[in-house]
Amino acid sequence: MSSKKPLNIGLVGYGFMGRTHTNGYKRVNDFFPELAYRPVLKAVCGRSAEGTQAFADQWGYESIETDWRKLIERKDIDAIDICTPNNSHAEIAIAAAKAGKMILCEKPLSMNTAEGHKMVEAVESAGVLNTVWYNYRRVPAVTLAKKLIDEGRLGKVFHYRANFLQDWTINADLPQGGTALWRLDAAAAGSGVTGDLLAHCIDTALWLNGSISDVSAMTETFVKERTHTLTGKVEKVSIDDACAFLCHFSNGSLGLFESTRYARGHKALYTLEINGENASIRWDLHDLHRLEYFDYKDEGQIRGWKSIHVTDGDHPYMKHWWVPGLQIGYEHTFVHQVADFLANVEHGKSTSPTFREALETQAVCDAVLASAKGRSWEDVKV
Amino acid sequence: MSSKKPLNIGLVGYGFMGRTHTNGYKRVNDFFPELAYRPVLKAVCGRSAEGTQAFADQWGYESIETDWRKLIERKDIDAIDICTPNNSHAEIAIAAAKAGKMILCEKPLSMNTAEGHKMVEAVESAGVLNTVWYNYRRVPAVTLAKKLIDEGRLGKVFHYRANFLQDWTINADLPQGGTALWRLDAAAAGSGVTGDLLAHCIDTALWLNGSISDVSAMTETFVKERTHTLTGKVEKVSIDDACAFLCHFSNGSLGLFESTRYARGHKALYTLEINGENASIRWDLHDLHRLEYFDYKDEGQIRGWKSIHVTDGDHPYMKHWWVPGLQIGYEHTFVHQVADFLANVEHGKSTSPTFREALETQAVCDAVLASAKGRSWEDVKV
Amino acid sequence: MSSKKPLNIGLVGYGFMGRTHTNGYKRVNDFFPELAYRPVLKAVCGRSAEGTQAFADQWGYESIETDWRKLIERKDIDAIDICTPNNSHAEIAIAAAKAGKMILCEKPLSMNTAEGHKMVEAVESAGVLNTVWYNYRRVPAVTLAKKLIDEGRLGKVFHYRANFLQDWTINADLPQGGTALWRLDAAAAGSGVTGDLLAHCIDTALWLNGSISDVSAMTETFVKERTHTLTGKVEKVSIDDACAFLCHFSNGSLGLFESTRYARGHKALYTLEINGENASIRWDLHDLHRLEYFDYKDEGQIRGWKSIHVTDGDHPYMKHWWVPGLQIGYEHTFVHQVADFLANVEHGKSTSPTFREALETQAVCDAVLASAKGRSWEDVKV
Amino acid sequence: MSSKKPLNIGLVGYGFMGRTHTNGYKRVNDFFPELAYRPVLKAVCGRSAEGTQAFADQWGYESIETDWRKLIERKDIDAIDICTPNNSHAEIAIAAAKAGKMILCEKPLSMNTAEGHKMVEAVESAGVLNTVWYNYRRVPAVTLAKKLIDEGRLGKVFHYRANFLQDWTINADLPQGGTALWRLDAAAAGSGVTGDLLAHCIDTALWLNGSISDVSAMTETFVKERTHTLTGKVEKVSIDDACAFLCHFSNGSLGLFESTRYARGHKALYTLEINGENASIRWDLHDLHRLEYFDYKDEGQIRGWKSIHVTDGDHPYMKHWWVPGLQIGYEHTFVHQVADFLANVEHGKSTSPTFREALETQAVCDAVLASAKGRSWEDVKV
Repeated sequence: MSSKKPLNIGLVGYGFMGRTHTNGYKRVNDFFPELAYRPVLKAVCGRSAEGTQAFADQWGYESIETDWRKLIERKDIDAIDICTPNNSHAEIAIAAAKAGKMILCEKPLSMNTAEGHKMVEAVESAGVLNTVWYNYRRVPAVTLAKKLIDEGRLGKVFHYRANFLQDWTINADLPQGGTALWRLDAAAAGSGVTGDLLAHCIDTALWLNGSISDVSAMTETFVKERTHTLTGKVEKVSIDDACAFLCHFSNGSLGLFESTRYARGHKALYTLEINGENASIRWDLHDLHRLEYFDYKDEGQIRGWKSIHVTDGDHPYMKHWWVPGLQIGYEHTFVHQVADFLANVEHGKSTSPTFREALETQAVCDAVLASAKGRSWEDVKV
Repeated sequence: MSSKKPLNIGLVGYGFMGRTHTNGYKRVNDFFPELAYRPVLKAVCGRSAEGTQAFADQWGYESIETDWRKLIERKDIDAIDICTPNNSHAEIAIAAAKAGKMILCEKPLSMNTAEGHKMVEAVESAGVLNTVWYNYRRVPAVTLAKKLIDEGRLGKVFHYRANFLQDWTINADLPQGGTALWRLDAAAAGSGVTGDLLAHCIDTALWLNGSISDVSAMTETFVKERTHTLTGKVEKVSIDDACAFLCHFSNGSLGLFESTRYARGHKALYTLEINGENASIRWDLHDLHRLEYFDYKDEGQIRGWKSIHVTDGDHPYMKHWWVPGLQIGYEHTFVHQVADFLANVEHGKSTSPTFREALETQAVCDAVLASAKGRSWEDVKV
Repeated sequence: MSSKKPLNIGLVGYGFMGRTHTNGYKRVNDFFPELAYRPVLKAVCGRSAEGTQAFADQWGYESIETDWRKLIERKDIDAIDICTPNNSHAEIAIAAAKAGKMILCEKPLSMNTAEGHKMVEAVESAGVLNTVWYNYRRVPAVTLAKKLIDEGRLGKVFHYRANFLQDWTINADLPQGGTALWRLDAAAAGSGVTGDLLAHCIDTALWLNGSISDVSAMTETFVKERTHTLTGKVEKVSIDDACAFLCHFSNGSLGLFESTRYARGHKALYTLEINGENASIRWDLHDLHRLEYFDYKDEGQIRGWKSIHVTDGDHPYMKHWWVPGLQIGYEHTFVHQVADFLANVEHGKSTSPTFREALETQAVCDAVLASAKGRSWEDVKV
Repeated sequence: MSSKKPLNIGLVGYGFMGRTHTNGYKRVNDFFPELAYRPVLKAVCGRSAEGTQAFADQWGYESIETDWRKLIERKDIDAIDICTPNNSHAEIAIAAAKAGKMILCEKPLSMNTAEGHKMVEAVESAGVLNTVWYNYRRVPAVTLAKKLIDEGRLGKVFHYRANFLQDWTINADLPQGGTALWRLDAAAAGSGVTGDLLAHCIDTALWLNGSISDVSAMTETFVKERTHTLTGKVEKVSIDDACAFLCHFSNGSLGLFESTRYARGHKALYTLEINGENASIRWDLHDLHRLEYFDYKDEGQIRGWKSIHVTDGDHPYMKHWWVPGLQIGYEHTFVHQVADFLANVEHGKSTSPTFREALETQAVCDAVLASAKGRSWEDVKV
């Protein structure tokens, strides 16, 4: 492996996403041996020295930092990977850009579009390579969907629908805030399911079906008060527990989106469906290795929805893994994003979705939240 | 069978729905032998004497009429069954009520709420038994869903979503209007998918989850012009090809509804899902004999969605049919509604959904269409 | 309907199968209006005058008999429909053939091959039209499977597997024998699951995949003793509770068959699958309106199993029913067999499976039972 | 990681299984941080120095060998992992045992039972820790099945059925033999699908349902001749392309097994089902993250097959991975086996299935092949 060029990673934040990204860095060269670069786990940064060191020990980071500013100052770091809560993305990213570091930022890009604009400006004016971890684009079945669409198989698109259903916050005794539950705290997360879950749905939709023009949304907070982990007091819940919206895409198709953490029975059920004139596509995260495909051009008597077991060598990314019939899982999406990132580094290119591309998702989220607040249709303004 | 009391049916209109209702009348006593009444196919009425006679011959109606006013005047008719296009429901129903006939009216009740109010007033002031053919309530799996909800198994409800997806009008060469395609003609149908498909979804939703307070909708007409069968000319299409809406239910849950005739790959896919605090339920029309059920009270390690094959003797209506494992189909829903109607006749009761109950669906449809037109949230006003 | 020629039916036995057949006779002209014949429910015959009369009243038979010999002697009967336990099929059929009646015999044809031979000889020497009610051939999805096979889509066949799984006799307190439970009594039924369930699987297999050469089988009786309904005593159970066998088909493919009444969780799960060089087909009775189809000639990246919702007008039998997406059920298979029988009467032809064709199923069953007894491979001898 | 004890691995063979095992070694400490041992990729051994070095470079082995005897002689190797074709397992394993190495042997254990006995004797007399890579036991859903069975939820078992269906050798132009296709060469593989695929089914069955007493089998070689990669000549194919067998388990249940490489449409579809008095279980490899479970004790009207999405923290192995709803895949089964192996090393215990346990699978395979050859029932002799 010595012949590969090292790319030194500095990871900020070591929660759930820190694990998924780190695993991506550690696996990529085993399965994508053609890459010229190899990620080096140079440093991980967290506020707690103890927790950070434990993570470094378990995963093999060479060093730790407790101040992300110091991490960014380090000369031996090529790329900053941001895995912190949403409210710190902008500050860290802008500083990293100024320091000339490549940036891999966890989604959503920012707290809002305004903040996102500054981040885009920062990376573009600094000319640093960047990407946002909308990992579901790189589920092989979703990538295959993109390929089929790009091949023009759907014809004119009429409908796009997606939802992301979870049920883990139904229990009203669950507190909000703190390290583990910052996603329930608007101050840290910006929004609730909109930024956490719908953002995934929107990113994929924009990629597969183009821009969204306008939206009409509703949000709801079912549990109005929860104990706050940091203060110990019962406080008002400010995030959206559920959010749904109607929209128009620029290509004339209609969109319907929904996300919630109150759909009993669904753990992490992200589903999407696209209906075109000639063909339709469905996918869901609970069986992520399958793509459902309907082709109207099939002969009438044997027409039907096909379940494609996306495990063959001619399916996206799959030649790197096992043999037909043997499925991969969730974590592999991050390996794929690292692989694409490293391949693009060779050519000096940023990796999709870039900050700029991810900004559009932010703009849709902002329009959604504004619409829900104003009970009005809102245009999407990037 | 001679011991049963005859109930003489006069059917107006003999299209697709004329067949489904007639089949209901002819099968009901074979499978529900306990009923005191037996329907008698006394007369069928249509504008074409030839077509009407052919239908009468095939299905065994004793006589025909070509003017529904004459049918209503006949002393030997107990009940008028209205299977005509939507724009004639009100006139026929009001006349039938005045003549003291029982009325079984095909859905949707009326062209709009105002018209529906007059129909409700007519049947209630005349005191005639009435029902509207929202047949999907009587799919055994859907009736079972209602039973499970009434037993309190769901707890607080958070979400209700339903869609009705078809793909039969994608071809732009399909004409509009006339006997076969009046559903594409706003003058005859009132609306497009809203009255045709969404009305079904709304009726079931009101039954399972209670009232809807307000809605935000969008509609679309993808094919803007079609040849009109009656005029032979290319004319503007005035119906909605697709309609989707967000809503709030009075119980605090959020609703999401969609219907379209442009969802390639779906023939008649009516699906519904309800998420409660303790349990969730799913159903779809393409496998109508199954109910999906998730119960959070199940032991953690073996918790999952259960597929109930609704074919057992202790499932609604099923003791009347075959043995466990042997499914029934679409047409049986009409047999069930006839059976319930006849049983209620014995007790002088109207059969749910009555005209009054169906009026609420109309009010939701009106709010939906107004919302789509005005790009505004609209309250539902019954 | 008066223009149609009457075909007078005399039904022997009015249990579960009496209902399914009668329903077939009553519905056929409504849905197959092109037929020249109409079945007339002339007489039903049963040992109990009271029970028989009640059945006649419910279903509309014109008269009753309590001795099948008298029924056969009646001049006003055209066709004898045999729905009695298996041990009386031969005697009734042979007498009916001698009397020149058409015969519709419930499956299995006979208690064994020897008896079956006499029945075949009887109908063939008398020249009477005949058929055996292996109804599953006429599930539209199964008929479609036959069509696809006949079109040569599978290429060389390698594998055929079928099973029929039930769970209704697991309870050891269930008695054997008598009117309701004669299927558990070897004296009345001849065998257990072999004649009751496997016979269905074998009939379809012979139809779809040709002759079976030899078999190796095992049978088991899990509950060794049950109270006999007629004697009131605990008696040895002589039927097979479960039966499985390996076989070779004449076309070189391998077969695997299994049936049981001890497969907890399966009500009536008849499944079949055929694997050919170019394509494969799967079907099951619990979702009988679907056919699964895999075509290797599909483009690699979008290859997968297709779920065909067999409800379109170009699917077998379906133009007679509703519209795409609206499923039919179990009982319709009998309507289809009546329709085919009546159409064949017009041309003086027997309807498949004829007695002769059903005899081959009997021969396979005999080989299976002999193999299980002798723990040996047995050739199938028709 | 320095605090963990190193366990030096010497891998023999670097084909497909070499990759899966190596990946297991490399990932285990990231996800199972509680283990006291860490595997060290000390050496990999293959006949081609070039190929072996390339593998070592890609995966990070410290050194290579081209003679397995030398590898075994090395003092710095603690455990030998055997990934070579079946015909060399015995020789390598026996030598490794004599050298006092721990052994991890790819399945099937041996070419036959006789050879297997010698291997068992070798490891047991040497007292070396051992395991055989029947990896499917450690799919979390399969491990959960074992747990549910051990908890006594099934009651008396009536049926066990399993099959393993592939379609990759249908093309008659595919050659046999050599590095890539040794599985088609009886000299290297011992048997065809019996040892390759059925062995997996048998191992799981013995684990879940206990011993098998006797079998009746059939085998078939559909493509009789193939070009041999090593000789370049068309040679007779000696392996079994397909194999099916009936059997009795010692607990009185009936078994039905089948495997083939000629089931068009199935890539690697290993399915199993167990039917007990009180509950039944189903699983398949194409959706390996789900377990189907039917519990007769559920209330009647809501009884049905449950699909358990085996991704929760209280499911076997899953607390080590991600969060509920996020599936893992095929490769993780090997990580689990390494984790269990390392945990057992701490206690000086071999890991199930041990050589002795895997020997029983070998005995069933031998009985199956003997039965197919002799067209006779054969007892299983361990």
